[in-house]
Amino acid sequence: MTSLSPTPRSTLSRKKERAATDRQALYDVLDEGLVCHLGLILYGAPVVLPTGYGRDDDRLYVHGSTGATSMRAATGGIDACVTVTLLDAIVYARSINNHSMNYRSAVVHGCARPVEERAEKLHGLRVITEHLAPGSWDHAREVNAKEFAAVEVLALDLTEASVKIRTGAPVDDPEDVATGTAWAGVLPVRTTFGEPIPADYVPAGSPIPAHVAGRRLDSSRTGPATGSS
Amino acid sequence: MTSLSPTPRSTLSRKKERAATDRQALYDVLDEGLVCHLGLILYGAPVVLPTGYGRDDDRLYVHGSTGATSMRAATGGIDACVTVTLLDAIVYARSINNHSMNYRSAVVHGCARPVEERAEKLHGLRVITEHLAPGSWDHAREVNAKEFAAVEVLALDLTEASVKIRTGAPVDDPEDVATGTAWAGVLPVRTTFGEPIPADYVPAGSPIPAHVAGRRLDSSRTGPATGSS
Repeated sequence: MTSLSPTPRSTLSRKKERAATDRQALYDVLDEGLVCHLGLILYGAPVVLPTGYGRDDDRLYVHGSTGATSMRAATGGIDACVTVTLLDAIVYARSINNHSMNYRSAVVHGCARPVEERAEKLHGLRVITEHLAPGSWDHAREVNAKEFAAVEVLALDLTEASVKIRTGAPVDDPEDVATGTAWAGVLPVRTTFGEPIPADYVPAGSPIPAHVAGRRLDSSRTGPATGSS
Repeated sequence: MTSLSPTPRSTLSRKKERAATDRQALYDVLDEGLVCHLGLILYGAPVVLPTGYGRDDDRLYVHGSTGATSMRAATGGIDACVTVTLLDAIVYARSINNHSMNYRSAVVHGCARPVEERAEKLHGLRVITEHLAPGSWDHAREVNAKEFAAVEVLALDLTEASVKIRTGAPVDDPEDVATGTAWAGVLPVRTTFGEPIPADYVPAGSPIPAHVAGRRLDSSRTGPATGSS
């Protein structure tokens, strides 16, 4: 397992004990998230847009059409930051100051490259589609030439990234633990899928395919009960 | 109800039909979210960090300590973008191209001002705390002088913002509706709270206070079943 090879900007300056430094932790956060937040500089100011993405080994593919305005300004690549955050719990402490959240976040820095080459763009679309809706690439009608031309795909290599994780119980100051009376603990935040709702043009009684009906999110998100501040 | 007074960068250039233009829609997204993504420019590159926040009328307060490194570079204010995204469903279409997500997102642009004045900083902390953990401000031990000095609060006015909403069924091309055979529909994504887990230093049998035990997220997130592309 290789490290994340962090640079100064991907090295945490605060709450260092929350840093995960192995590559698998990065993969785990990126693979579990459904939406990323893509940060770009547009006309000199930061812009943060939610969009779809997918991971293939050490490369992220990001659905660029959401940032169409920004993308057009890019020639050859644009400085980007892609962040994926999984919220696991609200942490209630005996002191207001020690209130927190349990979360896992990945922050990836780099040059987002518009993917122009046909084979890689098709591959990128597949990676993004299979992340958003696993099984859909083979099940749904394929992308036609017009659709293919209109969509934008960005590639961002996972060479500079940081992962931050907080799990477990609140960590209160010793005086609050000893003499405080407020309640303290965690309130888990769960993200789950509900029952699929067919479109009205799908014939009544059609079975819901296994790749939809059987889809699950990892439910082990609350993390261990041991504390870390 | 006043409009969001959008500027060119807060006016959607794409999927305009997804734009919500009333201020209440902005409030609704900001009030339901738990985490925001704060975008800043740091050493010339975009950085996107997840952090806590809260809204007071037309002002956002953002927990700035997460971006401590960045904040220190700021004098008087820093260009920022704060984005809050609520994911409501994965949208499966008969074509790969029409796959989508149901979501509500708010993107706020502006100058994030470090809050230095004591009364406003205390107010901002209260707004952020009550957003993260409603009821905790009065229940938990108050912030002491040392804690108060160490925390950083940013203020960002809601003067330039955009809201984007997609709800309902997939929208497939007429040919796919007429002749396609793939399944189409939505898979709701639900965010809920689990059972509170007390910290081990809370006496066994202590009641869980109502502001924790009774906390609910809005469960009407899937939106109406009518389609919009």
